[in-house]
Amino acid sequence: MTATTARNRMLGHVISAEQFDRGLLDLLFLRATALAGVRDDRLAHRVMATLFYEPSTRTRLSFESAMLRLGGSVIGTEAAHTFSSAIKGETLEDTVRMVSTYADLIVLRHDEAGAAARAASVASVPVVNAGDGPGEHPTQALLDLYTIERELGRVEGVSVAFCGDLRFGRTARSLALLLALYPGVRLAFVAPAVIQVGGDILARLEARGVECRLAEQLTDVLDDVDVVYQTRVQKERFTDPVEFEQARTAIRIDGAIMRQLPAKAIVMHPLPRVDEIAPEVDADPRAAYFRQAANGVAIRMAVLEMLLS
Amino acid sequence: MTATTARNRMLGHVISAEQFDRGLLDLLFLRATALAGVRDDRLAHRVMATLFYEPSTRTRLSFESAMLRLGGSVIGTEAAHTFSSAIKGETLEDTVRMVSTYADLIVLRHDEAGAAARAASVASVPVVNAGDGPGEHPTQALLDLYTIERELGRVEGVSVAFCGDLRFGRTARSLALLLALYPGVRLAFVAPAVIQVGGDILARLEARGVECRLAEQLTDVLDDVDVVYQTRVQKERFTDPVEFEQARTAIRIDGAIMRQLPAKAIVMHPLPRVDEIAPEVDADPRAAYFRQAANGVAIRMAVLEMLLS
Amino acid sequence: MTATTARNRMLGHVISAEQFDRGLLDLLFLRATALAGVRDDRLAHRVMATLFYEPSTRTRLSFESAMLRLGGSVIGTEAAHTFSSAIKGETLEDTVRMVSTYADLIVLRHDEAGAAARAASVASVPVVNAGDGPGEHPTQALLDLYTIERELGRVEGVSVAFCGDLRFGRTARSLALLLALYPGVRLAFVAPAVIQVGGDILARLEARGVECRLAEQLTDVLDDVDVVYQTRVQKERFTDPVEFEQARTAIRIDGAIMRQLPAKAIVMHPLPRVDEIAPEVDADPRAAYFRQAANGVAIRMAVLEMLLS
Repeated sequence: MTATTARNRMLGHVISAEQFDRGLLDLLFLRATALAGVRDDRLAHRVMATLFYEPSTRTRLSFESAMLRLGGSVIGTEAAHTFSSAIKGETLEDTVRMVSTYADLIVLRHDEAGAAARAASVASVPVVNAGDGPGEHPTQALLDLYTIERELGRVEGVSVAFCGDLRFGRTARSLALLLALYPGVRLAFVAPAVIQVGGDILARLEARGVECRLAEQLTDVLDDVDVVYQTRVQKERFTDPVEFEQARTAIRIDGAIMRQLPAKAIVMHPLPRVDEIAPEVDADPRAAYFRQAANGVAIRMAVLEMLLS
Repeated sequence: MTATTARNRMLGHVISAEQFDRGLLDLLFLRATALAGVRDDRLAHRVMATLFYEPSTRTRLSFESAMLRLGGSVIGTEAAHTFSSAIKGETLEDTVRMVSTYADLIVLRHDEAGAAARAASVASVPVVNAGDGPGEHPTQALLDLYTIERELGRVEGVSVAFCGDLRFGRTARSLALLLALYPGVRLAFVAPAVIQVGGDILARLEARGVECRLAEQLTDVLDDVDVVYQTRVQKERFTDPVEFEQARTAIRIDGAIMRQLPAKAIVMHPLPRVDEIAPEVDADPRAAYFRQAANGVAIRMAVLEMLLS
Repeated sequence: MTATTARNRMLGHVISAEQFDRGLLDLLFLRATALAGVRDDRLAHRVMATLFYEPSTRTRLSFESAMLRLGGSVIGTEAAHTFSSAIKGETLEDTVRMVSTYADLIVLRHDEAGAAARAASVASVPVVNAGDGPGEHPTQALLDLYTIERELGRVEGVSVAFCGDLRFGRTARSLALLLALYPGVRLAFVAPAVIQVGGDILARLEARGVECRLAEQLTDVLDDVDVVYQTRVQKERFTDPVEFEQARTAIRIDGAIMRQLPAKAIVMHPLPRVDEIAPEVDADPRAAYFRQAANGVAIRMAVLEMLLS
């Protein structure tokens, strides 16, 4: 109990995946598992504000479901940019100061990197970063890591292949940095050069002793993976449409890929997916992406409990 | 209790008014009457998602009120088309699979016929069709039928005159097919030819033994009706504005019509009304349309209870 | 208790600040103070509808927080103008009649003066005016007055300087009329001529024995004020941009102004502020505007309790 209290004190706000160490992750995942089926009133009369400056219905609904399942309440807006006060020129800081007096916790989605840290610096209640543009989306990284642990029974020593848009997507980068906390993790980055992972991230991972390799074809790494983490490739990242089609084909997951995938491996995706995973894959028990979405509610229940109790 | 349990099992989803038989309708109406004044926690910790791909504030608020009065909670969006994932190309099926992990029940409004059935085919929780474009809106038909039973004390043998847009409006069609389950029902369809009810519907009704007649003027049928079911006529259905004005005038309900209407008859309207019912009618006790709206909450309470308990 | 019951009966709807007399204000402020820290279920199973025809996230979230903290529930829309039924031509009156059957109380925001009174005339549940265009916003005036009482310990005899847009802004006008209920109140109106308070308001205040003076510079009145009530000046009120800049400079509150402000005085602002109060003022304990925002929740809790219990 004392340890829990100490940890909670560390969790004043959730701004970055990198604020979590192994001990806090272990505790959070224990709580997520304990809370997943809970429906009670432990957060009764607590009000969560979802302050979304850009729509992200998936993230918003997932947080709201987590709060409601613990008996809390929700106020919010998914169009904070059309907020009359934002239109009139109110700063994010003033809006957060005000919403701090209405709610016991603020879940903030914003289009500018650093917005969550700015909000936390003036808020009188906990702030959870639900995505700040090109910055971070820490609860996504937490639910991804939690999914690996639940599906495989361990994180230490796993081999993960990240596919898709690894240059611009914040999802793979955040998860990779969390994985670096676990010994023996090996990572493959599978993408055409134009959207391949940045050298800065590789350098940080290798400095932490993570074994990294790069590939252009998913088939090059398939025989030695525990997790394929697929992400969406955006056409607008490419200047040449032919190159875009080649890139997509090289990393698309379909029945043929699944036949090569090891029997105990899993396929993850932060969703939404378009056609980078074929519908025929859905029925395969190794397709973990909808279970991954469900884990998002459990992780957010654990985060809310830690911040509010 | 055993009968109730058996019925509930039938109600996995609510997709079409035609999935209801007499026994199930009787049970649903009993529950609606029993629940109308209830404010308790029987659905505590249950989360309903309102997933609206087109706005329909009336329907959404009515479902949400029903859920909250039974102690449940609500998450949702009234702009699912601007949903970041829909914009990124996510299918309805993927969205529904995901929302199934966030909520215990999904109320879906969509602009395409068949959308609710598609959603139900992949959902892991009950789906309620809250209107699928030109398709169905079953809880509207249920609340209409329930209103007739409550107002007149019976459905068997009633004479109903449908007015207005009978060709394109799904409301009258769905209610007419439900009425066909009751013996002795007689129906009149009052509309100019261009928006008169389709021959396919007439054939189905007559095959079920329902007596049907067509008319162009409401005054032609008024002396023998128990219910006038008025609907809104949309100008865009007409090519000739003069014809549109004549059509509206022929079926408009005002003080003069009310003086001809039998003393025990009622006027219904699914709302919103524009000027097809004159404001002077509102004070007449036979104007049942706002009581009809209130019945919508009770019927939806009964539907939610059946699906979730 | 009997007195409370009698007062409650007076409060069928909250449409105008002027419906409150001293006795009712005293009672409301006692309840606001008593309720500020309350989190319970006294309004359990009561449903509040927030029907907003123009967005006002601040006001909406504040009302919703008040309702949820008392255990009630909320349904609503912040885009009532895109309401399918409004688009189809439904009147405000019909919408209110319908929402009356879904909710136990309606909070209405509208862009037309008089809308709240029209709504109240047909509603079968209490209506709270949350701003009707150029009309009134009574709960804003109530929370402003309550803030003065809490911050200064009294209202009688206070000296208040209103600054900014006093011609078009409804906030200062409503508060001034409430202050006129208290003996010995003195008011200063500080604004350039083009946005100075109207002669009609001055006449009404003076008829009630309130001492009023006009000024163009905030520094002219600073030595004798208990409250500076700042409001935002809109550029579009001015034809000459140079004149706009001069007006803003004359009434801007910054560190220099704060050094002249009496030690026990406070600065208020209805928010959002843009640059009419410099950020350097925020840390001064006399800056009361965020405490004022927090008081908005307490006042609305008291209003909801009075109307619903």
